[in-house]
Amino acid sequence: MSEANPGQSMRAEIDEQPRIFADLLAGTDIAAVAATIAQRKPRFALLAARGSSDHAALYAKYLIEVLLQLPTGLVSPSTTTLYGAQPDLSDVLLLTVSQSGGSPDLIEVTDSARRRGATTVAITNTPGSTLNSTAELAVDIRAGQEQAVAATKTYSATLLALYLLIDAVRGGTGQDAAALPDLARRTLDESSDAVAEAVHRYRFAGRLVTTARGYSLATALEAALKLAETSYLPARAYSGADLLHGPVAAVDAETAVLAVSGEGKGGAAMRDVLDAVRERGADVCTLGSGPAAAHHIPVPACAEELAPVLEILPVQRLALRLAVARGGDPDRPRGLSKVTRTR
Amino acid sequence: MSEANPGQSMRAEIDEQPRIFADLLAGTDIAAVAATIAQRKPRFALLAARGSSDHAALYAKYLIEVLLQLPTGLVSPSTTTLYGAQPDLSDVLLLTVSQSGGSPDLIEVTDSARRRGATTVAITNTPGSTLNSTAELAVDIRAGQEQAVAATKTYSATLLALYLLIDAVRGGTGQDAAALPDLARRTLDESSDAVAEAVHRYRFAGRLVTTARGYSLATALEAALKLAETSYLPARAYSGADLLHGPVAAVDAETAVLAVSGEGKGGAAMRDVLDAVRERGADVCTLGSGPAAAHHIPVPACAEELAPVLEILPVQRLALRLAVARGGDPDRPRGLSKVTRTR
Repeated sequence: MSEANPGQSMRAEIDEQPRIFADLLAGTDIAAVAATIAQRKPRFALLAARGSSDHAALYAKYLIEVLLQLPTGLVSPSTTTLYGAQPDLSDVLLLTVSQSGGSPDLIEVTDSARRRGATTVAITNTPGSTLNSTAELAVDIRAGQEQAVAATKTYSATLLALYLLIDAVRGGTGQDAAALPDLARRTLDESSDAVAEAVHRYRFAGRLVTTARGYSLATALEAALKLAETSYLPARAYSGADLLHGPVAAVDAETAVLAVSGEGKGGAAMRDVLDAVRERGADVCTLGSGPAAAHHIPVPACAEELAPVLEILPVQRLALRLAVARGGDPDRPRGLSKVTRTR
Repeated sequence: MSEANPGQSMRAEIDEQPRIFADLLAGTDIAAVAATIAQRKPRFALLAARGSSDHAALYAKYLIEVLLQLPTGLVSPSTTTLYGAQPDLSDVLLLTVSQSGGSPDLIEVTDSARRRGATTVAITNTPGSTLNSTAELAVDIRAGQEQAVAATKTYSATLLALYLLIDAVRGGTGQDAAALPDLARRTLDESSDAVAEAVHRYRFAGRLVTTARGYSLATALEAALKLAETSYLPARAYSGADLLHGPVAAVDAETAVLAVSGEGKGGAAMRDVLDAVRERGADVCTLGSGPAAAHHIPVPACAEELAPVLEILPVQRLALRLAVARGGDPDRPRGLSKVTRTR
């Protein structure tokens, strides 16, 4: 079935996202978890994740630092699992992000952190998972079972769940997110032609650089990963600031650049980056609600901190269609399985 | 001159490293800075850096988490510079790593953190820099002026300075590092043939994946950056664990894989990764003191936490020679300057 209709599962799950956002916004477990976190008054936050979830964790890092004013770090699981670090984690909030809730290293990190005094929260799509029972608290992203091998709906639902959780910790009601189901539908509709053009442009691309600043850095990272693992396009993400620090030297007329260009502060800080890659003759495509290059994938405007939830949708479609155009089946990528057991 | 002898500055600075390590080991300012840090009893550490220094910062993150048992995060400068986050940073240690000490965003992050209560330390190669006067404390990496555009000696000297600082905070005397000047000389001598072979093998490579686990993840990241910005080889680094979570799908017989294989716990955890990329038919080269593939760049054994100081040396030579073999001049890369002013 998959061979007759390559990418069928991935396509269906991309299209489900507006409805999943609506379900999540109607949900209830986040407020109670947020109330417990707020009551603990954490002084530091840590995030543990792997793969796509690591990009969702980076998004949450920005949210926690800006909206909750807490210094935040991304956990390197191997300091616990390989080197046995046992830090004092009282006053620490640990959010562990995993679609399956089954990665042994993340379970070990969460278990260790809980025993060392951290307030631990599992953010998963699998309420019965071992990670859920290991953490003290849990948030269900409620995206429904993921059939496709490439994460799409679970990535965006994780972003939204993290936003709602962090907004609730500061006493918010998630009202900025209320329009997301409609905006997600519009994003998928209105970006379709631009995505089709991008498929043509990237059909024979030998290298792609994705770049962004601020909240949208998560979009650049997830775009590079999704395009690399689905379409086998050599893609690498850079913070716009880091790109200018050196790697811009490798950008030339044979480089495709996908730059996230939003309306907010992150987007404004991308102007120098766009100028620099244009000067080097790169093939530039902008993505977002901000200033557009000649080739542009539009995304409707929303609060800057929510833009990553929408920006990734046309990228998922691009990864799907590019994979099919290149003769692949994104539902059957080479050598990828859903739960990877690393320690 | 540079055209007559491409890469002259970079070559000279690579060769200087054993002597720089010896100078740094004979130095004195680190013990006093470490004593102040130890006295403050920080509960959480943050590291701020850009570019190559960001990889040195990641190395320090592992050291701090394992040797000092403190949870540690890498700063996203834009949460301060773009979004104005003002967290309470009492009990926090901030190490800001910058060769030049002149990056405006890192100066702003450091200034803000100091005003918010953090113990701030500048790790630079420029004792008179603005960053040095912005931070409360400073460590001079004493690598001498860097003429080459690609960072080599300042990267390795930063790793060693960070090790010595963190070791001194826990009461160490740096004795595990005493052999590094000799080991660095041996590394450069003994890896020369294997590097020459790697230049031939990567001469026409279209994509390179670098990978490692544990402390050596810094080596994989720095190797990918150095090869990308010096030789324009599309190179991307992955933690071995993250690679197995998805991107391994893009590894095939046309992919060159440079895998750091050390003797310690990080190297042992790479076995599954080596098996996976071999199974996919990739061209595998191992680097380090651990199990060797048919193509192997040897590095003498040392304490696992110091291996990254040695592992990067043959990679720098590889980046230099590959750039020259491809007709470039690594002292004149396209569009790279030493201080990049981002905010």
